[in-house]
Amino acid sequence: MSSEKTQSEPPSKSGVARLGRGTFTLFTLTSLPARLKFPKKRQRKGLVERGAIAYIEGLAKLVRYYILLATSKAGSGHPTSSLSAADLITTLMFGGFFLYDPARPALANNDRFILSKGHASPLLYALWTVAGRITEEELLRYRTFGSPLEGHPTPHFKYVDAATGSLGQGLSVGVGMALNAKYLDRLPYRTYVLLGDSEMAEGSNWEAMEIAAYYKLDNLIGIIDVNRLGQRGETMYGWDVEVYERRAAAFGWQPIVIDGHDYDQIFAAFKQALDAKEKPVIIVARTIKGKGVPAVENKNGWHGKVLKKEDVDEAIKGFGPLDKSVRGQIAQPQDLEPPRRTRADVPQPAYAAGEAVATRKAYGNALKRIYPAFPEIVGLDGEVSNSTYAEIFAEAFPDRYFEMFIAEQNMVGTALGLSTRGKMPFVSTFAAFLTRAFDQIRMCRYSNASIKFTGSHAGVSIGEDGPSQMGLEDIAMFRNVLDCVILYPADAYATERCVELAAAHRGIVYIRTNRGATPIVYDPSEAFEIGGLKVLKQSSSDRVCVIGAGMTLLEGLAAYDALKKEGITIRVIDLYCVKPIDAGRLAEALSGVGAVVTVEDHHPEGGLGEAVRSALADVAPATLSVHSLAVRKIPRSGRPAELLDYEEISRDAIAKKVKELL
Amino acid sequence: MSSEKTQSEPPSKSGVARLGRGTFTLFTLTSLPARLKFPKKRQRKGLVERGAIAYIEGLAKLVRYYILLATSKAGSGHPTSSLSAADLITTLMFGGFFLYDPARPALANNDRFILSKGHASPLLYALWTVAGRITEEELLRYRTFGSPLEGHPTPHFKYVDAATGSLGQGLSVGVGMALNAKYLDRLPYRTYVLLGDSEMAEGSNWEAMEIAAYYKLDNLIGIIDVNRLGQRGETMYGWDVEVYERRAAAFGWQPIVIDGHDYDQIFAAFKQALDAKEKPVIIVARTIKGKGVPAVENKNGWHGKVLKKEDVDEAIKGFGPLDKSVRGQIAQPQDLEPPRRTRADVPQPAYAAGEAVATRKAYGNALKRIYPAFPEIVGLDGEVSNSTYAEIFAEAFPDRYFEMFIAEQNMVGTALGLSTRGKMPFVSTFAAFLTRAFDQIRMCRYSNASIKFTGSHAGVSIGEDGPSQMGLEDIAMFRNVLDCVILYPADAYATERCVELAAAHRGIVYIRTNRGATPIVYDPSEAFEIGGLKVLKQSSSDRVCVIGAGMTLLEGLAAYDALKKEGITIRVIDLYCVKPIDAGRLAEALSGVGAVVTVEDHHPEGGLGEAVRSALADVAPATLSVHSLAVRKIPRSGRPAELLDYEEISRDAIAKKVKELL
Repeated sequence: MSSEKTQSEPPSKSGVARLGRGTFTLFTLTSLPARLKFPKKRQRKGLVERGAIAYIEGLAKLVRYYILLATSKAGSGHPTSSLSAADLITTLMFGGFFLYDPARPALANNDRFILSKGHASPLLYALWTVAGRITEEELLRYRTFGSPLEGHPTPHFKYVDAATGSLGQGLSVGVGMALNAKYLDRLPYRTYVLLGDSEMAEGSNWEAMEIAAYYKLDNLIGIIDVNRLGQRGETMYGWDVEVYERRAAAFGWQPIVIDGHDYDQIFAAFKQALDAKEKPVIIVARTIKGKGVPAVENKNGWHGKVLKKEDVDEAIKGFGPLDKSVRGQIAQPQDLEPPRRTRADVPQPAYAAGEAVATRKAYGNALKRIYPAFPEIVGLDGEVSNSTYAEIFAEAFPDRYFEMFIAEQNMVGTALGLSTRGKMPFVSTFAAFLTRAFDQIRMCRYSNASIKFTGSHAGVSIGEDGPSQMGLEDIAMFRNVLDCVILYPADAYATERCVELAAAHRGIVYIRTNRGATPIVYDPSEAFEIGGLKVLKQSSSDRVCVIGAGMTLLEGLAAYDALKKEGITIRVIDLYCVKPIDAGRLAEALSGVGAVVTVEDHHPEGGLGEAVRSALADVAPATLSVHSLAVRKIPRSGRPAELLDYEEISRDAIAKKVKELL
Repeated sequence: MSSEKTQSEPPSKSGVARLGRGTFTLFTLTSLPARLKFPKKRQRKGLVERGAIAYIEGLAKLVRYYILLATSKAGSGHPTSSLSAADLITTLMFGGFFLYDPARPALANNDRFILSKGHASPLLYALWTVAGRITEEELLRYRTFGSPLEGHPTPHFKYVDAATGSLGQGLSVGVGMALNAKYLDRLPYRTYVLLGDSEMAEGSNWEAMEIAAYYKLDNLIGIIDVNRLGQRGETMYGWDVEVYERRAAAFGWQPIVIDGHDYDQIFAAFKQALDAKEKPVIIVARTIKGKGVPAVENKNGWHGKVLKKEDVDEAIKGFGPLDKSVRGQIAQPQDLEPPRRTRADVPQPAYAAGEAVATRKAYGNALKRIYPAFPEIVGLDGEVSNSTYAEIFAEAFPDRYFEMFIAEQNMVGTALGLSTRGKMPFVSTFAAFLTRAFDQIRMCRYSNASIKFTGSHAGVSIGEDGPSQMGLEDIAMFRNVLDCVILYPADAYATERCVELAAAHRGIVYIRTNRGATPIVYDPSEAFEIGGLKVLKQSSSDRVCVIGAGMTLLEGLAAYDALKKEGITIRVIDLYCVKPIDAGRLAEALSGVGAVVTVEDHHPEGGLGEAVRSALADVAPATLSVHSLAVRKIPRSGRPAELLDYEEISRDAIAKKVKELL
């Protein structure tokens, strides 16, 4: 990655900028306004000095220059969306507000900046170029294969915490970072999120707004770049900034409306934001799309388009002489780290013999039990913690649990924010409702996050509540996430172990749990592993193997009992790890059988059956046939057993299928 | 379905109710207040008369009685959430406001009612029982297998248009219905949506709010049942109804705050709502969860729980004598239908020979071209119509297009609402961003909707914009939707035909399109069909078959050319219909080959490769091996060809794989 090539320290030099028609020294570092002197403690007072403004103004011209340079060279990108926010973010970054040690991106007390309007990535890269952290040569590789400066920001670029580009997600990530600062790490860092006006149409932003206000995140500052124009025309509200102001106020935020190109107002707004008490702040900035390039300013039809060479040349000419050796200075944060948490040993799980336990309940038990060993854990739930049993954890460790209410998209975005700050979120709701956040889950992966999702109420076996509440898509959804681990335990002990596996694994893990209480299958000492499976029944006479997981494993075992009474033995495998599957091990476990019946309380597409087929594709003998029982009809309300029968995934359906294959 | 057994006409009888301690005649039908005389024209004036209130009050007791009866018998369900809204909706339904002909649910001018808080289904069923449309016997089968009275409402019950139960979706459905009334059918019907206070946390509701205000839907009335308590405790705002009032006002709605158990206020609110001008109305009603059952009123811990028998008995005793023979009367709407639209013949598609056309552009062309033949079509797009090329349709038929801005969840919910009113929505955005609405798409299926989705910018072949913009999950997502048809055309003609197929098919169809311009593959006269495939290259010496679709078909054809130069022939199949696959036909097309290579610009899980494996499971010879090339690494920014190579789904990667298999 070219970021390795960037200088580890910005050059220390006087703040020189050439502005307008002439060149003049604004100030040397020793004469910088107090705010710019990289204060040990955050500066909260002082008037905006002309010198500071002129300094920022000069840097903003350089930022614009680099935006134009990078996009022109790349032949693609979003220059006009970058230009509108250039004055705002140049001021934030180099005006003494943003406290960040570029030499230590991992410093816990660094302020955070999230470019929610990720298509404005040229602005981000231009800023870091001006900060001396990207060379011009590196900048010119923007959008080329292998460059960390991707079309939309990703963590390939070391100053990016979370990938953005799917709009309406950055504020939720910011909520996670701000929650962490205020309630977990208890550090004074602030989180800034740059939002586009178009993306304010995304409901997820209003979820983030309500939750941020609920948790009184006065360390979270949103900036809406109201440049009036979306991708294909005017936004819903154009330049009616009062709409955003009213809505933000109604959602419990403190709005500050400014002209996003007036430095006095920008400085004043950021200063005011630092004084926030109990409320998050949103700066609603009226801006001009394409600002700085007269030919396209405030003109429709220039979203995501490279500008004409003559228009760029004219704009750069208008900037006047530019001193490309000048470097923007970023103020240093206090060198603070959160208190270290010690890891403690935890007890083993224990359930009474013969006890029937819902795996969702075992999930809650496990999370509570293992927390001392994994003190990074944070619980999040979407207002169903008494169904998912996240409440067991929440009641035991209320400081480590955040109620996220019925707003799943923000819940997942918040988890991503927490993950970037070293926490390990366990996110739970009904499996069905995780579909609400598929886009956010996808972006978690592109952010290299380590998040554990738990979906309860899997499948038709929930019974009477009907299809809206039944997770029948969750395995397909999470399988589709690259490298995601999927665990579907069949009993309480397996669940306890799967939660341990999830916590010990860095990356995205999905745990599927069932609603109904079910018998214990495993010994307390049984070991589980990622990529593992269990052969629970086998004999040399087996000709058919039933592969199930969770509820369908129990049905498979019941089918085994029933068939045995008829003198038929079958192999039964618990594929509790649906992804990844150790193909060789699975093939070995199937040795001797001629047919496999996969059974899943899930739609057939993308589920356990297709996972088995794909795993076996290269390793199984050609003569092995794989048959899938799955949910193929729209479920109804009814008793669990009725529905398992209706969908032909019950013990009877399994036994029938086995007999067909003999 | 038991609804067949319901009476076709409610018994005509005098409005008798026994209230309090005694029995008395309130009024006969002839002495009903004017509002209750089932007016031919909607009544908008008149004071609330005591008689009307007493009448409604009596019906509400009966409604509460049936709520308790149904849930107690079922042993599950949500009585307390139903009771809180009983006064509100009994007044709406029987107070002369709701205009609906129960004998003709399909009447275009019927008012619509959506129970967004779908768990309150006992309220819905109790209301229709009081209306004489469900017998007590039918009601007592609530939540039993086969009953149309499911745990959460579905269209199995004939007075339900759209399935609800996944919260935060009903208002969007209402937006679709109200858009239809105001702009398409131009009928005076109104749409009412009952919302829970907990579900107002869902961002999708605020998307619906903003879009409804933008389109000035003064025929849309939301009712928030602010009963303070969610599933596991208090909502974010409890009884602070002003929060909802302020937010609704800031989102451009007219809020009316009332006590949801005060009939004077309820009547006044519904009357005021009928006078709305240019703004949608939201009634914010402070209510008591469990209202009518003293033992649980306003108590936490009673969400989704059956009440104790003694508490129910006490409550029913408190109702006083009930006359179960009384029937609530629903006012009749005007007998209006929208003007019939005539179907016209349309021209055939035509592209210049040798022209390179992006399939996304052909999509726009096709939609415009076929509209006269399918005048039910309505276009919806999420602020990217100049990328998806929905703009071609929008510019040609602006009256049939609605800009949905960057709010995909509401866009899909709105499409569902339109679909219930006989329209055929074509919904487009980037394939990646359809993941945002997976939950809504799922609910569209449970609503038996006929909606056509188009996802553009599929796969890594979009190039520089990077993974956030690349649809790599869309095939898996739509395959998982029961009966969904998936079409992935490879050139402009195929796209034109696929759009025709989508329009002619009743149900959910997904069309996947590519960003880049690609060559024409097919003749203008080539025929396509659902379940079809095309064998584009074949010879008797083929040992390997490459199956692709869309972009990867083109790569497969290029691999064919390259391999042919080396004296190797392969079979090439265009699997343009990814679902359903005609397994027999596919197996036949593969006759003679020993290995299949599927190639997809999509993650392997749930995609084309697994679709082929599943299709072939039962029909292909055991010796046929299936190998999958797919996107297995997180994509980068880069040129399309570079990324196809990086992910090993390019022509070179295909040729290499083929050689490995020979």
